[in-house]
Amino acid sequence: MSREKAVVLVSGGMDSCVTAAIAHTECELAFLHLNYGQRTQQRELKAFNNIADFYNVRERLVVDVGYFSQIGGSSLTDTRISVSKADLESQEIPSSYVPFRNGNILSIAASWAEVIGAGKIFIGAVEEDSSGYPDCREDFFSAFEKALNLGTKPQTHLHIITPLIHLAKADIVRKGLELNAPLELTWSCYQNETKACGICDSCALRLRGFEQAGVEDPIEYVTRG
Amino acid sequence: MSREKAVVLVSGGMDSCVTAAIAHTECELAFLHLNYGQRTQQRELKAFNNIADFYNVRERLVVDVGYFSQIGGSSLTDTRISVSKADLESQEIPSSYVPFRNGNILSIAASWAEVIGAGKIFIGAVEEDSSGYPDCREDFFSAFEKALNLGTKPQTHLHIITPLIHLAKADIVRKGLELNAPLELTWSCYQNETKACGICDSCALRLRGFEQAGVEDPIEYVTRG
Repeated sequence: MSREKAVVLVSGGMDSCVTAAIAHTECELAFLHLNYGQRTQQRELKAFNNIADFYNVRERLVVDVGYFSQIGGSSLTDTRISVSKADLESQEIPSSYVPFRNGNILSIAASWAEVIGAGKIFIGAVEEDSSGYPDCREDFFSAFEKALNLGTKPQTHLHIITPLIHLAKADIVRKGLELNAPLELTWSCYQNETKACGICDSCALRLRGFEQAGVEDPIEYVTRG
Repeated sequence: MSREKAVVLVSGGMDSCVTAAIAHTECELAFLHLNYGQRTQQRELKAFNNIADFYNVRERLVVDVGYFSQIGGSSLTDTRISVSKADLESQEIPSSYVPFRNGNILSIAASWAEVIGAGKIFIGAVEEDSSGYPDCREDFFSAFEKALNLGTKPQTHLHIITPLIHLAKADIVRKGLELNAPLELTWSCYQNETKACGICDSCALRLRGFEQAGVEDPIEYVTRG
């Protein structure tokens, strides 16, 4: 019997890699990656393809959503806004926020899922550890799942799966190690493409997660915090 | 006092033109247009700009969402699937259906609205007359509005306005005439870019609407049904 097909959103970062490892235990994988004009686009795409090769994923879709740069408002896509150094205690929404990014990503995933016959969409969003992005919260995903089932064909039934939603970064590291996820192939840094900077929000969260899990991050850094 | 800003989705067709005319009565307009690889892309963009000029719209955003062609599944973007002739009595979802198109469109609109400070998104979707597209139904828009307010900043409050949702095509024609909407600048045909074909779903619906309203459509056709 063939396994159910799942679209997995794979940015190339650690969270999406562990999400793919979890999806791999139960589904046939189809990988979706977005180039949205972020600074580290080429490095993330390389990580995406390396992870896809690792899991022998045949169905891959890479889409350009350069309109995020046109819309602006984020340091990830607008080079006039500097990437802020990490402040993990801050309650402010950081400058790397792209407005309603996950809404856009999930809409693309839903369109593709309907065409290829996938019943699940896996996304590695993390609620507690998400730097305060409003589109990383569980109530958003529940509401979006309802909307996308109302907006697709009657025979289409899509589930949004967020396996990491309540995990801390250290739990994600442990889960990845447990499932033999290829963490050495991932890229998380918002700033650099050769060695990770170690000081942006994304690097800081990742390094703290490895530290709390008591293992060393296998990728190279300019500085480790 | 400055008027509230609204993002209006303007494809260049008659419905979006009448929607813009309605939005114009109460809001400052910002026009959003999508190139999604449809056959008639250049002609629709021309109509978009002509309508924007008519209403003196300063804020315009035109985004390429060519990924619809990559995803496929629709005769609008996949040239291997032929555009079906109209069958207005059919209950089948027609071949021009682009999976979850309005979900994608509204996500982009929401991102832009948050950046430019618009509180409303106007979309000219029509439920009864929509050829059976599932993402044109009122319950979909209600669910999507809820999702996008959960997925944007706490201070962002977005309303999706669908002023045509329960109108028949003839009512839309009448509304357009009442508000002096520039219907002569619009383009609805899915097939042609010079003279409208008169036989695709979109032309057939439009022509029937004008006929029922008892007025002549001001644009040129190869054949009028």
